[in-house]
Amino acid sequence: MLFLKNDYSLGAHPAVLDALVKTNMVYADGYGMDEFCQAASAQILQRIGCPGGEVHFLPGGTQTNMTAIAAFLRPHEAAISPETGHICCHETGAIEATGHKVIHVPSEDGKIRPEQIDEVMRFHEDEHYVKPRLLYISDSTETGAYYLKNELLALREACDRHHLLLYIDGARLAMALTAPGNDVVLEDFPKIADAFYIGGTKCGALFGEALILVNDSLKPDFRFLLKQRGGLMAKSRLMGVQFLALLKDDLIFSLGAHSNRLAAQLAEGIKKAGYHFAVEPATNLIFPIFPDALIEELQKKVMFEGWRPYPDGNSAIRLVTSWGSTEEEISEFLQMI
Amino acid sequence: MLFLKNDYSLGAHPAVLDALVKTNMVYADGYGMDEFCQAASAQILQRIGCPGGEVHFLPGGTQTNMTAIAAFLRPHEAAISPETGHICCHETGAIEATGHKVIHVPSEDGKIRPEQIDEVMRFHEDEHYVKPRLLYISDSTETGAYYLKNELLALREACDRHHLLLYIDGARLAMALTAPGNDVVLEDFPKIADAFYIGGTKCGALFGEALILVNDSLKPDFRFLLKQRGGLMAKSRLMGVQFLALLKDDLIFSLGAHSNRLAAQLAEGIKKAGYHFAVEPATNLIFPIFPDALIEELQKKVMFEGWRPYPDGNSAIRLVTSWGSTEEEISEFLQMI
Amino acid sequence: MLFLKNDYSLGAHPAVLDALVKTNMVYADGYGMDEFCQAASAQILQRIGCPGGEVHFLPGGTQTNMTAIAAFLRPHEAAISPETGHICCHETGAIEATGHKVIHVPSEDGKIRPEQIDEVMRFHEDEHYVKPRLLYISDSTETGAYYLKNELLALREACDRHHLLLYIDGARLAMALTAPGNDVVLEDFPKIADAFYIGGTKCGALFGEALILVNDSLKPDFRFLLKQRGGLMAKSRLMGVQFLALLKDDLIFSLGAHSNRLAAQLAEGIKKAGYHFAVEPATNLIFPIFPDALIEELQKKVMFEGWRPYPDGNSAIRLVTSWGSTEEEISEFLQMI
Amino acid sequence: MLFLKNDYSLGAHPAVLDALVKTNMVYADGYGMDEFCQAASAQILQRIGCPGGEVHFLPGGTQTNMTAIAAFLRPHEAAISPETGHICCHETGAIEATGHKVIHVPSEDGKIRPEQIDEVMRFHEDEHYVKPRLLYISDSTETGAYYLKNELLALREACDRHHLLLYIDGARLAMALTAPGNDVVLEDFPKIADAFYIGGTKCGALFGEALILVNDSLKPDFRFLLKQRGGLMAKSRLMGVQFLALLKDDLIFSLGAHSNRLAAQLAEGIKKAGYHFAVEPATNLIFPIFPDALIEELQKKVMFEGWRPYPDGNSAIRLVTSWGSTEEEISEFLQMI
Repeated sequence: MLFLKNDYSLGAHPAVLDALVKTNMVYADGYGMDEFCQAASAQILQRIGCPGGEVHFLPGGTQTNMTAIAAFLRPHEAAISPETGHICCHETGAIEATGHKVIHVPSEDGKIRPEQIDEVMRFHEDEHYVKPRLLYISDSTETGAYYLKNELLALREACDRHHLLLYIDGARLAMALTAPGNDVVLEDFPKIADAFYIGGTKCGALFGEALILVNDSLKPDFRFLLKQRGGLMAKSRLMGVQFLALLKDDLIFSLGAHSNRLAAQLAEGIKKAGYHFAVEPATNLIFPIFPDALIEELQKKVMFEGWRPYPDGNSAIRLVTSWGSTEEEISEFLQMI
Repeated sequence: MLFLKNDYSLGAHPAVLDALVKTNMVYADGYGMDEFCQAASAQILQRIGCPGGEVHFLPGGTQTNMTAIAAFLRPHEAAISPETGHICCHETGAIEATGHKVIHVPSEDGKIRPEQIDEVMRFHEDEHYVKPRLLYISDSTETGAYYLKNELLALREACDRHHLLLYIDGARLAMALTAPGNDVVLEDFPKIADAFYIGGTKCGALFGEALILVNDSLKPDFRFLLKQRGGLMAKSRLMGVQFLALLKDDLIFSLGAHSNRLAAQLAEGIKKAGYHFAVEPATNLIFPIFPDALIEELQKKVMFEGWRPYPDGNSAIRLVTSWGSTEEEISEFLQMI
Repeated sequence: MLFLKNDYSLGAHPAVLDALVKTNMVYADGYGMDEFCQAASAQILQRIGCPGGEVHFLPGGTQTNMTAIAAFLRPHEAAISPETGHICCHETGAIEATGHKVIHVPSEDGKIRPEQIDEVMRFHEDEHYVKPRLLYISDSTETGAYYLKNELLALREACDRHHLLLYIDGARLAMALTAPGNDVVLEDFPKIADAFYIGGTKCGALFGEALILVNDSLKPDFRFLLKQRGGLMAKSRLMGVQFLALLKDDLIFSLGAHSNRLAAQLAEGIKKAGYHFAVEPATNLIFPIFPDALIEELQKKVMFEGWRPYPDGNSAIRLVTSWGSTEEEISEFLQMI
Repeated sequence: MLFLKNDYSLGAHPAVLDALVKTNMVYADGYGMDEFCQAASAQILQRIGCPGGEVHFLPGGTQTNMTAIAAFLRPHEAAISPETGHICCHETGAIEATGHKVIHVPSEDGKIRPEQIDEVMRFHEDEHYVKPRLLYISDSTETGAYYLKNELLALREACDRHHLLLYIDGARLAMALTAPGNDVVLEDFPKIADAFYIGGTKCGALFGEALILVNDSLKPDFRFLLKQRGGLMAKSRLMGVQFLALLKDDLIFSLGAHSNRLAAQLAEGIKKAGYHFAVEPATNLIFPIFPDALIEELQKKVMFEGWRPYPDGNSAIRLVTSWGSTEEEISEFLQMI
């Protein structure tokens, strides 16, 4: 069975696993107070050029989004998100469960535009409405798009205009920053975002996300919130160790680039075979449109997710490559269509 | 530096780590739908003699307690816990953050007695009070005690008397069940508890707890809650793999027994040296009372936690052994006192 | 200054106020356990033909919606609402503050259609999404429309199809049931809804809403929730007294009819003067479209709310009549345009 | 039947009711933006000598405590309260339902001492515990005691020492300030508390509490929270009107004094008859100890609440006087014992 279902279906990249094995019998303090987490934090802050930042490690993306957003907002404040945003539709109301409304705006490619923020703000005029206070974006998005630098800067301006915090879900930041055409560098993020996270789970780690708090006002007592929401692991060291391995020689970005490259090969082959895409391919998530009959055939040999049925007998499906995908797998798939 | 601070300071037991390495490059579905989780669930249910139970894997103890209790209760319902209970004082109000009061009762050894439950119920008489609906106990307790079978049965009766659910935090269940003098077997738990978890983090795993829902009324939609609270890991497989390794030849209980055995050696040596204990040693957490001057000396060579200062120039400290503790370490400590 | 801003700008209808005065020095028990509340409950249940129902009195609409919905749902369950629904946009995220997502669907007239529910359900397919569990509708709606009987029955069917509770916000139920063209009677509501409330605040009372629980599964422990959310007034008697007065000779419906009749006169006059409406007038909230210059003039002499600006120099405004509105006031307004 | 059960069993004081009747047909804006609320706010701020304060009117005490405390705290922060505090045991976990732990300390008379706060703070040492951030006290207390000025100042100092907000529940402030022996004046409260409320419900109003925010940091966006928690009444005017009447010639304090005076007569008569008290009588709540047989007799002719059974055949009961109590009622009771 060919596996193109998602980018979290293998364990860890061998270098990451190796680091875990090597440090396994080292005694270390718990709850993020260990030397591995401290070293990984220092390296991350240096790598992103933000010496005053604060790094926290959490086991997963939903956990990170929920913990961060609930820590940042007062009870009447809300997050704005594209309707495709992970917090909006794929986290079982985790944000609402902490008491906050998620205001969503339409989006085809998973990106939000400054004028959409302006419109939301116009509508939320007084105390009978929630108060929008945070913009949530994901980069790359849940439909595989990524933001250009001027787009991010324009969102930052919109946030400043409306007194909004900008929070970036970087579950696939490694893919965004290594996509062909990308003009953003990692050092840009702390200049643009109030907080963001660099995702490990989908980019070579067993698990783990590195949340970076840039804005000073978001830092006080964050570890209390981390513990309260269940995100402070006893053996946080495991994430320190893994991020040290992922940072070494920018491994995480090599893995992101690899995922993108194989997705591009896949997309090219599919295009050559005469098929179109629901969303223009950009990173490691692509959405080809196939006849339903072909899809039925593919399901026998490939693991993937459906995306959107069309009334004309075609449907879009979602294909995902990862750091572990191989050229052989791509060829194998292309031969099926 | 000697490490007697806690039982989560190493990585995983080599057999567990080895299982992770061996399965690392196997493709598996996400979010607990993989074959490893399914096999581990089946083995757990068989091992505990509860074919109708439902198993869920979560990354940590606070996460497990919070997710389970919040799933089980309606908004006005509360949990009863000994004041030493983990949910009561060491989880930063995680239960309250989901909206529920934790009613605590005094306890020296971390155990609760049926008559204490009766008293709580007498006090909560109408709708101006929260409605107690769940009894939380930990076995072994945060002060190293464990429950005898007749004690657990009496608590079950008290719960039946008052329409309470019984939930057991088994972060250190492996230690409770292998303590000298214990008369409870794992198969007793599903007969006594409505839900309980078998802890992996402190008993040989990198991380991971296996929550078992016994009472049918607690099962519907549990995966929604798991996802909402951030406890549904993308690579849940990691916990499936680890629990398969921990279950093999009852490894987890061998590790619990090892922890207990070394703690007993430690306690015996301390007694021989003429010292007393704040709580009678029973499992892998022991609380010797030393002169403050000796404690100051020990701090230079041993990592441990303080427990309780006394006005007479002595203090109780907490010493913890784990699956990785060695007889050499115990000897080394005993030579210091 | 002419007051057409809303229907809660006066005190109580004289008959209601009189009842409060007459009972003022009668000793009565607190928290809804008094004879007035009990008599009012009994009369309401008889009047709606639902002897098995349970009535609770709450001071206001947001309080009622929040308390009821939070009582009815488990943490992962969500409410569906038209986007104009009061819980959706005018209650500052009160529902989300209790932990639940409000899923909203587009609506021009404030009404929702069964096929919109079907679509929501199609989209919410598994545990990564919240689970829709309750349909919220208001009758009459925030834009002055009301539901016909076959529309309500079709919604009930959709709810049955998808295992949804049907909850009706009746802040202006008295207006809905007395609108020209209406074919629903009060006795229909307990046959169609799982719970609904009859609003007093906008229909002659100083304050107070009568929430009726029809579905047995919603009744257990409701008074706990009432107290917990702050909705159980010490002097609940005040609401018992008021509802007894409102029920006498169906006063509440006479007041609704009066509001509607004056709004119809107003609408007719506006139409005759050559103006159109943003929403077809049906009950006591009407939305005429005027030139911006005229609106500016009106603002000097009339209290009202803006509704929607159009790019062509016209805007819709909201005019509201109440039980206290007089024909003189209507004439006065019509002379201004 | 004699009514000594509580102080919220009648309607409003005639002067208050009269004010409602007189303003009934005046049009006024909704949601606290009316002239009555504005005038009442101004008068309150002048009366308490706190021109920079901010006043909000809420319908009841639980609503006020919950809305205020949830507005003031971040998610990991907790309130400290005497175990008899209303938020602690009589509001069905309303504070916890907004996500915050209530840390309670033992108290016989309902008062808390500075050293108890110090002890709580010592215990809450790091991020594994909630962070105490607010001290809740009620004055007068639920057991009828009141605070002396030096006691309040000492609590203020303890709060400053530990970075705690001081919030005073003044449901019975009118009784505290008019108790024999009291040395606190209303003007002291804004100098001592960060926020407090002057209760109307138990002191002559139909309903309504006036919450005063003194500390500037607590003011931003408070109206959002008020709306979100259901406490912003459509006809808030009713509370403005009532507080204007209660403030006129310090009516509210005359009523408090009356309640206290009749309670003192009652206590004196009971003492003369040879009975003791569970708590020394001080305000309008007194707790005489009677033989169980006498209590049984009394229950046939008097409405009151039980308090505490003793093993010796006696029990304490709670007797409450109010602004509406008469000397005849006191005599009538005293003749029964």
